[in-house]
Amino acid sequence: MNKTIETLLSHRSIRKFEDKPLSDQQIKTIVECAQAASTSSFIQAYSIIGVKRPETKKKLAELAGNQPYVEANGHFFVFCADLHRHTVVAEMEKADLTESVESTEKFMVAVIDAALAAQNGSIAAESMGLGICYIGGIRNKIEEVTELLKLPANTIPLFGLAVGYPAQETDVKPRLPLEHVYHEEAYQQDVQIYQDQLEEYNETASAYYHARTAGKRSDTWTSQMANMLRQPKRMNMKSYLHKQGFAKK
Amino acid sequence: MNKTIETLLSHRSIRKFEDKPLSDQQIKTIVECAQAASTSSFIQAYSIIGVKRPETKKKLAELAGNQPYVEANGHFFVFCADLHRHTVVAEMEKADLTESVESTEKFMVAVIDAALAAQNGSIAAESMGLGICYIGGIRNKIEEVTELLKLPANTIPLFGLAVGYPAQETDVKPRLPLEHVYHEEAYQQDVQIYQDQLEEYNETASAYYHARTAGKRSDTWTSQMANMLRQPKRMNMKSYLHKQGFAKK
Repeated sequence: MNKTIETLLSHRSIRKFEDKPLSDQQIKTIVECAQAASTSSFIQAYSIIGVKRPETKKKLAELAGNQPYVEANGHFFVFCADLHRHTVVAEMEKADLTESVESTEKFMVAVIDAALAAQNGSIAAESMGLGICYIGGIRNKIEEVTELLKLPANTIPLFGLAVGYPAQETDVKPRLPLEHVYHEEAYQQDVQIYQDQLEEYNETASAYYHARTAGKRSDTWTSQMANMLRQPKRMNMKSYLHKQGFAKK
Repeated sequence: MNKTIETLLSHRSIRKFEDKPLSDQQIKTIVECAQAASTSSFIQAYSIIGVKRPETKKKLAELAGNQPYVEANGHFFVFCADLHRHTVVAEMEKADLTESVESTEKFMVAVIDAALAAQNGSIAAESMGLGICYIGGIRNKIEEVTELLKLPANTIPLFGLAVGYPAQETDVKPRLPLEHVYHEEAYQQDVQIYQDQLEEYNETASAYYHARTAGKRSDTWTSQMANMLRQPKRMNMKSYLHKQGFAKK
């Protein structure tokens, strides 16, 4: 096993950081690595906002649902799907690109581009001994975040990424069984096998929580998922996307 | 600069592979690394189909627009957004999760989850000396790909990933200027600065193509983008997503 694979396999989210900012060089390296990721037909349809100012972080933390690690970290990045750039290209090249820019296809391309870049940035950070945590919570108040970061039309703040020097030890969380996630040649359609794998995983997840909380918690993965998904969240997303000029067609 | 950052920064897509399959151990490591990526609230909303059979690869290559490297590679992965798993959870837990599963928010979560996993898998592969190429082309005939891979409702084949032993040397492609993609505190809204950066990048891109093709090609990035986006592609995506049970609300 090489060092990179070791880094990948030892990932765990970090939610408590030392009070020590990242250096400019560390930030630059993280962004350069993010930019080195693959991008669909070289479209580069994302932008990254780096947040350093304590007031802005505090505001973001409130908007994300009062997660303290959005405020207290070494640096906070917001990854955005971005087709604004391509509307500027349209002006420069005197071309009508509206139908592409507003398509569901290009919305997906921009979301995927941003995610690939973010994951490269995360791995770069982790390889330097830093910890990371993705923050989907910034979509709780997505309109307010859009306004706070002065995001133009045709951009969306997808998620935050808190980065910093870890101030906690956490365990790697066991994932779904590999054969449940990875199928050969075609999707495994046998519901019984599928459910058996989930039951097996429930035992693993339950034992993990039990050991980690000294017996206080032992919920299964399927019950966690059901509890989370029973309450639909962020049901304004579709109208927000349309308002920002995405996925209209 | 550590080894991992070196791997990240030296990424280039590989489109010509040796005729040598990946070993089962290599495939397993790639999938394990994919699974180790962050996942929104631990939802793990993706699946991976591994394609080995020459007939299936050939068929996929046709559907993706006759890209030869979809057929000729060491292994072909298809990354899928997957909320099918969560409909099985709904049955097991006797919970109605329909509204969440069909929401635009959870569609985005599943796409991001799949992309983070894929990028981890890609980096694992590259760290082992393998080359990779993302294949968005599988969305050209997305209904046929869905059928070929026997994907159930609430799953989407997002993109392929061709992996193998590189049989070509290619250069790292210069990205947009860092300060164009990375903004501090808020989005850079000055159109003049924005356009100047793109003009600067046009020169870089043009020089890169010129050097690489012995003068045969010297197009700018903005002209490339305008040419690509002038013709809207895959405009069936929205109705396909709805049909698969995604982003309905």
